[in-house]
Amino acid sequence: MSDAVSPLARPFPAMPPIGGVTLRVARAGYKDWGRCDLTYVELAERTTVAGVFTRNVCCSSEVDLGRANIAQGQARALVVNAGNSNAFTGYRGRAAVEAILAQVAAHLGCPPEQVFVSSTGVIGVPLPLDKAQAGLRAVFEAAPCGWEDAANTIGTTDTFAKGASATAMVGDKKVTLAAIIKGSGMIAPDMATMLGYVFTDCAVAPAFLQQLLSAANQSTFSCITVDSDTSTSDTVLAFATGAASNAPLTSFDSPGADAFAAALRDVCLQLAQLVVRDGEGAQKFIAVSVTGAVSDDSARRIGLAVANSPLVKTAIAGEDANWGRVVMAVGKAGEPADRDKLSIGFGGVWAAREGQPLADYDEVPVSAHLKGEEILLEIDLGLGDGRATVWTCDLTHGYISINADYRS
Amino acid sequence: MSDAVSPLARPFPAMPPIGGVTLRVARAGYKDWGRCDLTYVELAERTTVAGVFTRNVCCSSEVDLGRANIAQGQARALVVNAGNSNAFTGYRGRAAVEAILAQVAAHLGCPPEQVFVSSTGVIGVPLPLDKAQAGLRAVFEAAPCGWEDAANTIGTTDTFAKGASATAMVGDKKVTLAAIIKGSGMIAPDMATMLGYVFTDCAVAPAFLQQLLSAANQSTFSCITVDSDTSTSDTVLAFATGAASNAPLTSFDSPGADAFAAALRDVCLQLAQLVVRDGEGAQKFIAVSVTGAVSDDSARRIGLAVANSPLVKTAIAGEDANWGRVVMAVGKAGEPADRDKLSIGFGGVWAAREGQPLADYDEVPVSAHLKGEEILLEIDLGLGDGRATVWTCDLTHGYISINADYRS
Repeated sequence: MSDAVSPLARPFPAMPPIGGVTLRVARAGYKDWGRCDLTYVELAERTTVAGVFTRNVCCSSEVDLGRANIAQGQARALVVNAGNSNAFTGYRGRAAVEAILAQVAAHLGCPPEQVFVSSTGVIGVPLPLDKAQAGLRAVFEAAPCGWEDAANTIGTTDTFAKGASATAMVGDKKVTLAAIIKGSGMIAPDMATMLGYVFTDCAVAPAFLQQLLSAANQSTFSCITVDSDTSTSDTVLAFATGAASNAPLTSFDSPGADAFAAALRDVCLQLAQLVVRDGEGAQKFIAVSVTGAVSDDSARRIGLAVANSPLVKTAIAGEDANWGRVVMAVGKAGEPADRDKLSIGFGGVWAAREGQPLADYDEVPVSAHLKGEEILLEIDLGLGDGRATVWTCDLTHGYISINADYRS
Repeated sequence: MSDAVSPLARPFPAMPPIGGVTLRVARAGYKDWGRCDLTYVELAERTTVAGVFTRNVCCSSEVDLGRANIAQGQARALVVNAGNSNAFTGYRGRAAVEAILAQVAAHLGCPPEQVFVSSTGVIGVPLPLDKAQAGLRAVFEAAPCGWEDAANTIGTTDTFAKGASATAMVGDKKVTLAAIIKGSGMIAPDMATMLGYVFTDCAVAPAFLQQLLSAANQSTFSCITVDSDTSTSDTVLAFATGAASNAPLTSFDSPGADAFAAALRDVCLQLAQLVVRDGEGAQKFIAVSVTGAVSDDSARRIGLAVANSPLVKTAIAGEDANWGRVVMAVGKAGEPADRDKLSIGFGGVWAAREGQPLADYDEVPVSAHLKGEEILLEIDLGLGDGRATVWTCDLTHGYISINADYRS
């Protein structure tokens, strides 16, 4: 974790324990640092699991194996290595992950397919297996810890620990979700990786858990961007221990399924927004709200084109209501748009309506809004009912300093 | 033009006159500046024309009308307004362009469809028609000028004037091409626009000229990027006056067509690279060479994904051989790639081969290469014969300063 905390940071919330989930951390020494860097989460028997993974085709062996092992639907343990992503390390990298699976499986007496591993940090350096194995032996003996310790231990260049929780009523049982995430702060010029983990005591069938996680992902993690660069290791896993003893959720027909789905999306959204708040060099948190698109998916792609535009992001960093750059970014998105129906606004004030600057546009309230820390950029396409919100941060000198000024 | 010239600038070359082309400049006063900002190029009768235009769907009326008028294949004049892009200005913007077409057509006694107009500068402010009309009256009376004056006059926040020329033998006639371009330097936080114009005394049928320009564009202008943001006004036009009195080129079966096509691509490539050399905040000129892709088009898209990656561009700014970021960018391109066949090199030295870091990788020559001003980044996919080269610049504090530090 860095010394310079993001100005958009949030304090770590009070987070409840989750039945069937035990957290432990240890120091494997993946880098020459005096902090814990190995997180081990032991999960009760019959815990179900679902996951979403990076679409980067150069993904790590951790992602390859995780994607394959999700299919059997059960999980007994999660291991997270911080300080080395083990990506682009060929057969040696894969062998290291397989050895970790085998060691944890032997410890728990479970199939190796029920162990999930993530690694984050420098790319192209094979994970040192001796350190991983010694670290695992240490962590098996460590005392259980709390969420904040785990959130700090999975972090690399994050500037603050990130967690979220929620509850839902499922039948007459109250179920709880607790989740941690790391990502998007980069101080050393390594690759950022987003790793998120959601734990719940709710009993959920794995196929339904996957359905809910994939749906939540679409409007949360898939709607954030810091710099348009997709990591080789991005992973979000959801684990459901069943300790709440509710009747297992198997579909939206199950009592309480809607409430659980809403709670799951809620924690995913909280986590996703926390990653943006720790975006490299971020000074402003930006919501890009797109309405009137031909579909929700089209709205999301337009929102991402705007949120990824260096010219839009630098304009907001400069507190400049440069809506012409927004027009440009909408136009380059490759999605249906009609210049003469397009409207752009900031913080509730339209600057341009239906393809033209407003004659009575008042920049005073817009300028005041842009001086704030939370920016709302509104785009109406005037074509249909499609809508989406995308979250990003501004592009500042801090981004350049973090990624160019320091050599690895 | 800015005071701070790009460190990658090139001196303006000696450029020959082209028969049938007369250049004039005047001051319309689109901005409060003491420089010429209106360029008028008169073209001999029977000059043919071809063009390529931005794909941004929020394009300006200049682009709309230019695209429509290219179809009839003839041009008598080009007008370029600097200081106001006239984009996103609705019916008033379109009316201004139509008035300019009418005024020039009346002056020359030609159809308005044979007049081409470009505008570049701030977006969302209707072009002041009174200034345009007075400027045109002045420029009609102005003395002819040379290429460098015209190149300076079409510029906005460019830091140096950009031109290129070439010759080719067509039958027994020597034909000459001369070309100017503006773009990619931004000091005021307005939108950059790339406007390029190629003039030749070669006689070329308009359909064949369009075919050649479109082909040249594919491997030149479509292979450069500064910041991934596609302008609303990008335009490249080619004008062929026929003053060389060669037998008109109508297809690749015409004698000299290959030589002319090569010369046309050569000037387009020179212009495209000059735009990169004037990229916002650029300190290094980067060639991304992609080989072994499944197709040339796939290679180009992979090259652009790498050249647009903020993490790759900041790494090169930091003179850091961070090939892991290149792997990431290849993987996110959405094109066929196999992590375990991928190789990455800098300046002729492989850092990683077939999915793994090289055991005997020597970073010393790579570090020396990265300290230079001209960077070669090599990517081999190991899949097929597809290849492309893409050119870009690094991402530096200069980019942020230009686009965020100064309010409009």
